[in-house]
Amino acid sequence: MAIVARRGDAPRTLPDPMNFASDNTAGTAPDILKALMAANEGFVLGYGNDDLTRSVELRIGELFQRPAAVFLVPTGTAANALALAHVSPPWGAVFTHREAHIVTDECGAPEFFGGGLKLIGLPGTGCKIAPKTLEDALSHYSGHAPHQVVPSALSFAQASEGGTIYRPDEIAALAEIAHRHGMKVHMDGARFANALARLNASPAELTWQAGVDVLSLGATKGGAMAAEAVVFFDPALALQMGERRKRAGHLLSKHRFLAVQFQAFLNDGLWLRLARHANAMADRLAEGLADAGYRPVWPVDANLVFVAVPGAVEERLRAAGARYYVRTSDSLPPDLRMEPGSRLLRLVTSFATVEDEVDRFVEIIRSA
Amino acid sequence: MAIVARRGDAPRTLPDPMNFASDNTAGTAPDILKALMAANEGFVLGYGNDDLTRSVELRIGELFQRPAAVFLVPTGTAANALALAHVSPPWGAVFTHREAHIVTDECGAPEFFGGGLKLIGLPGTGCKIAPKTLEDALSHYSGHAPHQVVPSALSFAQASEGGTIYRPDEIAALAEIAHRHGMKVHMDGARFANALARLNASPAELTWQAGVDVLSLGATKGGAMAAEAVVFFDPALALQMGERRKRAGHLLSKHRFLAVQFQAFLNDGLWLRLARHANAMADRLAEGLADAGYRPVWPVDANLVFVAVPGAVEERLRAAGARYYVRTSDSLPPDLRMEPGSRLLRLVTSFATVEDEVDRFVEIIRSA
Amino acid sequence: MAIVARRGDAPRTLPDPMNFASDNTAGTAPDILKALMAANEGFVLGYGNDDLTRSVELRIGELFQRPAAVFLVPTGTAANALALAHVSPPWGAVFTHREAHIVTDECGAPEFFGGGLKLIGLPGTGCKIAPKTLEDALSHYSGHAPHQVVPSALSFAQASEGGTIYRPDEIAALAEIAHRHGMKVHMDGARFANALARLNASPAELTWQAGVDVLSLGATKGGAMAAEAVVFFDPALALQMGERRKRAGHLLSKHRFLAVQFQAFLNDGLWLRLARHANAMADRLAEGLADAGYRPVWPVDANLVFVAVPGAVEERLRAAGARYYVRTSDSLPPDLRMEPGSRLLRLVTSFATVEDEVDRFVEIIRSA
Amino acid sequence: MAIVARRGDAPRTLPDPMNFASDNTAGTAPDILKALMAANEGFVLGYGNDDLTRSVELRIGELFQRPAAVFLVPTGTAANALALAHVSPPWGAVFTHREAHIVTDECGAPEFFGGGLKLIGLPGTGCKIAPKTLEDALSHYSGHAPHQVVPSALSFAQASEGGTIYRPDEIAALAEIAHRHGMKVHMDGARFANALARLNASPAELTWQAGVDVLSLGATKGGAMAAEAVVFFDPALALQMGERRKRAGHLLSKHRFLAVQFQAFLNDGLWLRLARHANAMADRLAEGLADAGYRPVWPVDANLVFVAVPGAVEERLRAAGARYYVRTSDSLPPDLRMEPGSRLLRLVTSFATVEDEVDRFVEIIRSA
Repeated sequence: MAIVARRGDAPRTLPDPMNFASDNTAGTAPDILKALMAANEGFVLGYGNDDLTRSVELRIGELFQRPAAVFLVPTGTAANALALAHVSPPWGAVFTHREAHIVTDECGAPEFFGGGLKLIGLPGTGCKIAPKTLEDALSHYSGHAPHQVVPSALSFAQASEGGTIYRPDEIAALAEIAHRHGMKVHMDGARFANALARLNASPAELTWQAGVDVLSLGATKGGAMAAEAVVFFDPALALQMGERRKRAGHLLSKHRFLAVQFQAFLNDGLWLRLARHANAMADRLAEGLADAGYRPVWPVDANLVFVAVPGAVEERLRAAGARYYVRTSDSLPPDLRMEPGSRLLRLVTSFATVEDEVDRFVEIIRSA
Repeated sequence: MAIVARRGDAPRTLPDPMNFASDNTAGTAPDILKALMAANEGFVLGYGNDDLTRSVELRIGELFQRPAAVFLVPTGTAANALALAHVSPPWGAVFTHREAHIVTDECGAPEFFGGGLKLIGLPGTGCKIAPKTLEDALSHYSGHAPHQVVPSALSFAQASEGGTIYRPDEIAALAEIAHRHGMKVHMDGARFANALARLNASPAELTWQAGVDVLSLGATKGGAMAAEAVVFFDPALALQMGERRKRAGHLLSKHRFLAVQFQAFLNDGLWLRLARHANAMADRLAEGLADAGYRPVWPVDANLVFVAVPGAVEERLRAAGARYYVRTSDSLPPDLRMEPGSRLLRLVTSFATVEDEVDRFVEIIRSA
Repeated sequence: MAIVARRGDAPRTLPDPMNFASDNTAGTAPDILKALMAANEGFVLGYGNDDLTRSVELRIGELFQRPAAVFLVPTGTAANALALAHVSPPWGAVFTHREAHIVTDECGAPEFFGGGLKLIGLPGTGCKIAPKTLEDALSHYSGHAPHQVVPSALSFAQASEGGTIYRPDEIAALAEIAHRHGMKVHMDGARFANALARLNASPAELTWQAGVDVLSLGATKGGAMAAEAVVFFDPALALQMGERRKRAGHLLSKHRFLAVQFQAFLNDGLWLRLARHANAMADRLAEGLADAGYRPVWPVDANLVFVAVPGAVEERLRAAGARYYVRTSDSLPPDLRMEPGSRLLRLVTSFATVEDEVDRFVEIIRSA
Repeated sequence: MAIVARRGDAPRTLPDPMNFASDNTAGTAPDILKALMAANEGFVLGYGNDDLTRSVELRIGELFQRPAAVFLVPTGTAANALALAHVSPPWGAVFTHREAHIVTDECGAPEFFGGGLKLIGLPGTGCKIAPKTLEDALSHYSGHAPHQVVPSALSFAQASEGGTIYRPDEIAALAEIAHRHGMKVHMDGARFANALARLNASPAELTWQAGVDVLSLGATKGGAMAAEAVVFFDPALALQMGERRKRAGHLLSKHRFLAVQFQAFLNDGLWLRLARHANAMADRLAEGLADAGYRPVWPVDANLVFVAVPGAVEERLRAAGARYYVRTSDSLPPDLRMEPGSRLLRLVTSFATVEDEVDRFVEIIRSA
């Protein structure tokens, strides 16, 4: 999914509304900010040797109904790359969607952390991988050792980069194939809360009960300042992950400030409330667009809306101050026809999106 | 400098005073915390594409009186490892003190980031490298290509891990040797503010004017939450450093929160005020200890005090709730005799240290 | 190009004729073997510090009409991976054909040597990359720094893995695009002699005069025991390549035995005579097959023939003792229809192939 | 052990006698060369899929009285680096002698193959590590996770770089310490035959029965052209080593020529006969030198003699055409006094050394 053009970056700071560029253009959710303030009291041992960190690690395990090994880090790229490197040898092949964030947007982080592992990009409508696609791809990886890389992991994003969601049975079908081939299953959960908020399923059902071995659990896009977690559902799989994190520079010294973000994020369902709001704003946007004659190109399951509009319409949006990215995608439904001159917009909502900006955006399109 | 034992970690959270374990057991300086709050307003492009980040990068250049290439990252290990990897090929040898943080405390981060580069640890009293030591070491690295690694960089900490400081002429002498051998010079400035606050010198005089090519400029130990900067004094040397940072997972998405920490840290001399306080507390501690008959083992130039005390005294300190690390060191002055049974304490002060805890600590020793 | 099945490996040693499995199933050409014997006299400094090595390095430069930097290594995988790692940063993207040897058969060697670089596989009939394909692919790599890997090199095989050949103007067209995007051009010349022997062009015209920056010059497939060379046409590009080779374990201690293989290979046109014979055997095979109604699926330019035959025919060949690999390929001409049940054979000839085994093979097919 | 100066490389080819520069200045032993010729017949599957390779792998297992996993490679650097990388994580520390070949002469190969592992160089007279030295060093590596690298392997050379030998009980003492700390034991056996020929012990007694987990079994220095083997005494430890070798470019395509060297080397005790000759020449040299008043600085156990001679004597040797390296060493016996102006010579004998050149060398010294 290549970026064709960035819109509206002439003034880099964008105080004006209708900002759908990314969920990371929003700031920090107020409750998390308050918790950061409160955590500032007193002296605390660094590098995660503090009570708060320990309690957050346990809390995440409880949430997933399983004693998990948890490693907090400041970025999603770090979480993904550390996780993949830990379940794949340098000669491993990680199968993923060809428009996955780890393929297109992390500048080779998995390859770096993994000592030169290889990402194999698979096609799939709406940025989702179909079980048959995985099975077919794997059929080419046998009988040719040691000349070929070795299938070592499946990695997929939940919600996907297209904003679509894998149901538990879809995850189970993929994981069954992966495990049958001796591979581990990694879920990039940068928007895990958005997926969870949408589905009638528990965190456990969406992950290890469906076969996920390791999860990048995101908080930043959901409302934290900078906080992600690598969660191994089998602690034995995490052996010496502490050394891997440290050596990558991702063990924060004043670690309490990382831990407290997660504490607040998960406390009393805040993460789901924030995600439900973002999802609701995406729904409102999708409905408005459909009403206006522009149905999103694939299902809107989370907080991302992909829609194709005529070039002239896109220019009016931009002129009105709306912010978003114009994309291309190889994942469009096979039967979808993009009109010549139309542009594919990626619209992202967040906990900070308000109804008014959604409505104004839709109104511009409707009146165009 | 190996850790013999950790003291007082039975309760991991340590709200009680006399905490000299590390400058990262303190929280965030209030002014920096306030700035973080204030930065939360509105939508801002992520990944450093915002006005605040740009202005902080320029501000750092001004401070050093030179157009510099600046890269903000969340940890000191990241800053050091990214910097060294960028100025050394994988077959490079980085000469440094054998008790340097990059040697003993970063779990091989420079080797990881640098594709397997090699650190060469040099001896030196008080954790400082003498020019002759460097010159002698380099004499073994010629005439044996391509079997030997290639000297590529000198790295030293300012202030050093022993809390000692290099004067500008000492830096210049080391840098001259390094440059003559085709090497780059890296300064680990995790405690750069402490060194600067002590010396009658400008940031420029302490760095590029003395021959430093790249600086890890620390803010975290000095009072920030998690903020460090890699500063290249020759922007051409920084080519594609952005890619290196991204691929290491050290480009924060909500980057404004990293930038604003530096803005506040450097604003109106805050960094120097905080450092001067930490240094003053170390001076008070050193003087008190000397008065009590325990002169620090080497000069106290910054915010670290190394002192040897009898085992019984150390146990009283611990029982009274004092927090610190007991160390061993190969960098003691040649003429220093450690009494049998004595223990070497590393005492670290910070912006948050108060006179009362220093005085209570000294009083325990005095009365022992 | 995945291997569907290996044929005839029940007895691993295959003394019987009709061996078209690979050009490395042949032994060493007699003249090269004789030269190895002759080089055994006396004491010679190791690691390439000998007269013979120096003279071979110069000889290769003369052959290409340019002072080149030459590095001998024992395998083609080493030559390719060392070359690519030397012209690409770890965050670089190397564009190549998706069925290239470096993609499918080197178990991630370029990624390992290159510190985690990324190979981008392009489609192309007959395993050749078309200039437009490269240009289109590159259009997705701009404007998204530092999130994307950076196009750093084009790598293509001459002859290609399909046995097709790039003409000088085709190379120039590709190289012009690559250079315009700041990339280097690498030629995998494992079968360079086969290409050269076919074309009416000089070594220089096929390489640097057409824009090639670095060549893996193969001798092993052509008749040597184990000898390849990395040839940089701009010696400045080869800076510290000696260290890279050594650290990869590819600097042979008794280096004279590597050098002498190249000396004999290049002496008095031996390499071209051996290649012409292999090519002629492939031509004979292709003509025989076409006469029998089985035209090769794409042009036979070098010593490889790809042909589709019915399953029953393939089984008769196998039963008769013929050796070859059955393949699949995504590089078939768009208008080619593979009959259901047919199998794609890869048939490789070498300096050691004799007319009789070609004729017997064709006869089996003809009579089937 | 740094090289102070290379002698006699003005003419790089050295046909004249008295060549004691290295055991790799000799050519290939005639029996091995003959075997190479004989192996040239017919077509054989590449990449080790041939009968000869399989039989050599089994033969090595028999020799060590244990089903071993064996991987042939062309260089000793490759064998060492592949072995160490396979038993150490990237954050591992490999303890070895500070003048070990892997530290001083492989340009960081272990660090490269091992993803940035760290070598810890230990002191020790005659280039041997004493058990207490290892034990003491390890005492600094605990209680500081995850900030420290993790002790992962002990590596020592047998015979050592000083030409000294570890007795089985010495190996067992080192291995016990290593295993108690969760480390693996690697033996660099570039001169394993020389050690074996000297001791009244079996290959098994010198290796796995004393605790060695993985051996680099050298043939090149002993008389082969280019052949080394990595031998894992527990095949489970070798999982996916085939992929590691391939991806490093060390799987030879015409693999039979690697296998046959080992076959001939081990056949009918050739390796021990060659080693006994080299050892005997070293003994003759050592005795002659001692008679002349120049006792070697440490025991001559294998085929290396280290002796200190006055500068003037060294110059006469050189003028007479003798070839050797002048070294420095930190491993001299504590009570040894090097006379001012004296030079430390490293003299290496091989299967090709003849009595006459030894005697002439001694005579020059005696008459000086």
